[in-house]
Amino acid sequence: MSAVIVAIGTELTRGELVNGNARWLSERLTEMGFTVDAHVTVPDDAERIRGTLLRLGQESKVIVCTGGLGPTSDDLTTQAVADALGVELVRDAESLARIEARYRTRNRAMPPLNMKQADFPAGAQILPNDVGTAPGFAVTIGGARAFFMPGVPREMQFLFDTHVVPQISALAERKSHQVHIRTYGLYESIVAERIRDLDRGGALHDERITIGYRVTFPEVEVKIFAEAGDADASRELAERVADQARERLRDVAYGGKDDTYPRYVAGLMKRAGIKVALAESCTGGLVTKLLTDLAGSSEYVVGGAVSYANSAKTKLLGVSETLLREHGAVSEPVARAMAEGIREALDVDLAVGITGIAGPTGGSPQKPVGTVCFSLARRKGASLTATEVFPGERETVRMFAAYYALRMFATAITETLDASKSARVATTSG
Amino acid sequence: MSAVIVAIGTELTRGELVNGNARWLSERLTEMGFTVDAHVTVPDDAERIRGTLLRLGQESKVIVCTGGLGPTSDDLTTQAVADALGVELVRDAESLARIEARYRTRNRAMPPLNMKQADFPAGAQILPNDVGTAPGFAVTIGGARAFFMPGVPREMQFLFDTHVVPQISALAERKSHQVHIRTYGLYESIVAERIRDLDRGGALHDERITIGYRVTFPEVEVKIFAEAGDADASRELAERVADQARERLRDVAYGGKDDTYPRYVAGLMKRAGIKVALAESCTGGLVTKLLTDLAGSSEYVVGGAVSYANSAKTKLLGVSETLLREHGAVSEPVARAMAEGIREALDVDLAVGITGIAGPTGGSPQKPVGTVCFSLARRKGASLTATEVFPGERETVRMFAAYYALRMFATAITETLDASKSARVATTSG
Repeated sequence: MSAVIVAIGTELTRGELVNGNARWLSERLTEMGFTVDAHVTVPDDAERIRGTLLRLGQESKVIVCTGGLGPTSDDLTTQAVADALGVELVRDAESLARIEARYRTRNRAMPPLNMKQADFPAGAQILPNDVGTAPGFAVTIGGARAFFMPGVPREMQFLFDTHVVPQISALAERKSHQVHIRTYGLYESIVAERIRDLDRGGALHDERITIGYRVTFPEVEVKIFAEAGDADASRELAERVADQARERLRDVAYGGKDDTYPRYVAGLMKRAGIKVALAESCTGGLVTKLLTDLAGSSEYVVGGAVSYANSAKTKLLGVSETLLREHGAVSEPVARAMAEGIREALDVDLAVGITGIAGPTGGSPQKPVGTVCFSLARRKGASLTATEVFPGERETVRMFAAYYALRMFATAITETLDASKSARVATTSG
Repeated sequence: MSAVIVAIGTELTRGELVNGNARWLSERLTEMGFTVDAHVTVPDDAERIRGTLLRLGQESKVIVCTGGLGPTSDDLTTQAVADALGVELVRDAESLARIEARYRTRNRAMPPLNMKQADFPAGAQILPNDVGTAPGFAVTIGGARAFFMPGVPREMQFLFDTHVVPQISALAERKSHQVHIRTYGLYESIVAERIRDLDRGGALHDERITIGYRVTFPEVEVKIFAEAGDADASRELAERVADQARERLRDVAYGGKDDTYPRYVAGLMKRAGIKVALAESCTGGLVTKLLTDLAGSSEYVVGGAVSYANSAKTKLLGVSETLLREHGAVSEPVARAMAEGIREALDVDLAVGITGIAGPTGGSPQKPVGTVCFSLARRKGASLTATEVFPGERETVRMFAAYYALRMFATAITETLDASKSARVATTSG
């Protein structure tokens, strides 16, 4: 079963906004088993909306449409649908009462403009909106069932999941299966090269498999999509190919669909029951921010210092002025002193120190822009240090460096966990 | 003159990728004076590509198309265009030589698959690609000039600017003008309410004006779009309306198109020649990250402490355990002690301390999730404190709090700058 996605809004055709709704809906519909035949975006232009809907009503069975349901004069979707169907607009008392109630709970009177959001093409099925003022609606245009939702992503997603999915899921026959593998540590082209022969264009020529890639810098997600007759066969095939891919990518694959590398590393910290701290210079708080984005991060993040200026390295972390003078702020000895300084100050198990040149200025022939020095300080054992030169602009260098720091934590924790596992095995067998 | 944008790729219709190319091209075409009538996205399906191009060739004068020019078996655009035109594919020796040369400079042999990228519909104008392997091409379909470019954003942008713009710019007559006003501090609906009468749907009923909004949370951008006959009249009208809008929004408007609030605040810090520091708890480094995202931030950011755990508040910032016990970590006295602690430690002019409950857990009836206490410490004068309760999820609360901290800096600096200006004026006139 196929579907088309329509977006209405001059802000889209003028390029003021990227159409994230089309991506979200496409992913949902694909997961449900639909084939999405097209995305069509048109401006707030009644004639163009009407013409597009009438054409798609001849070609499709399901139309999912977003945008143009707001209260202002340039929101024309509802009127255009009524025109396409040759029916009048009818005001729905219940919807009007709900919109008024929404304003009342915020101690505001409903602006008269919003009354328009209670108007629907005669005969439409109304889709109540619990998270915003604009209700959605559904009508039949030609041979298609067409669903209209506001363009605000949160409201659109609510209406789709609550009202649209139950009505259309019976139409979709799920025959395909997709497995996601999240990786961090290699460029997309190198990830692709390692598993290219598994893809349908590759040496095995298995036309049932499509491998896709999605880069969320600096992470690369691999998607193994299988279409092998029915859902069970597809799942089995996708999982089998995914196992091979994970084996080829075992040094960089860390999780599945909804994972992120910071969350994975946070999971390791929790599992190991350790506390960490950061001493950040060029990353300016980015690593600590990534780790504390996660709910419950106080379990493992104690804190950190952002020692952007040299004086801050000295005052907050006790890095000696002699060390700074002798080696320069961007050096492994200074990274080590930063990591050890914060580890001791906050009495944590592991701490990472980061100092580098994010750019665009500040580089030299010896230490070009992108040079970043790292150190990992541990409660027991010597500190580790490393230096990398990352390519790209300031933002890219900072993100590369932040992920590198996360990996230093991950490697240290994994080794500890593995060691304690071996120790337990040894004890048990001994 | 109008144009349509076509994107080809199953990765788009399956929702694996957001169509950023359509946004970029729309913005460019709009700036050039084109009206973009539609975006159409179709999967890698030869019949569907062919049908879409033939239909649009009847409706449009300019078609800009991205994707499907790669070397693999699912890249079908070139063949589909040849089919639509009823012509053969012809291999272009010069393009082939360029592709081979590209591989040679990287010390690699050209994979046989890539030969395909030197094939074009007979009679096509070839658009050489200096930044990738896939050349673009242009043909006439029906009444439209149609341009085909690879989907890789960098290559597409190069080909568009180098080859497409010179060919189509004469077709566009720039008649409209748009002014952007960036604001921070009010919800979109309240911003809109203040200036609604200036919009074409508003009390003045000026149909030449369209006001649009774009939310980049927590900022709201206002766009005043004017179409008043010719470019000069449009500019004058847009600027006049924008002046009125800025006056109504003077407490929250801070800049234009490419500004961001953190950059604005950083500019104030630079202008005032002051140094700042942060003591962050619930924001976990976010404020410092936002300020150090900017090149040259070492001029005004000295550093900061992320005191996530209470122990970090005590050890890094000297917040007394008694104070923490008596008032709780989320309290104005603790925020003040944090701000004053970091200000003194790093000897800066201004410092902000932030402590709160970002959620989702940790709230109480007295201090619900979203409660954040702030303090601004100054070299001279008493510290200021404030408490806010922000709505929303963890990420939202953190971003609200970070911006609030930026505004505390902005307010303090603006007052200082204004005071010194008045002082100078007084001196001059006295």
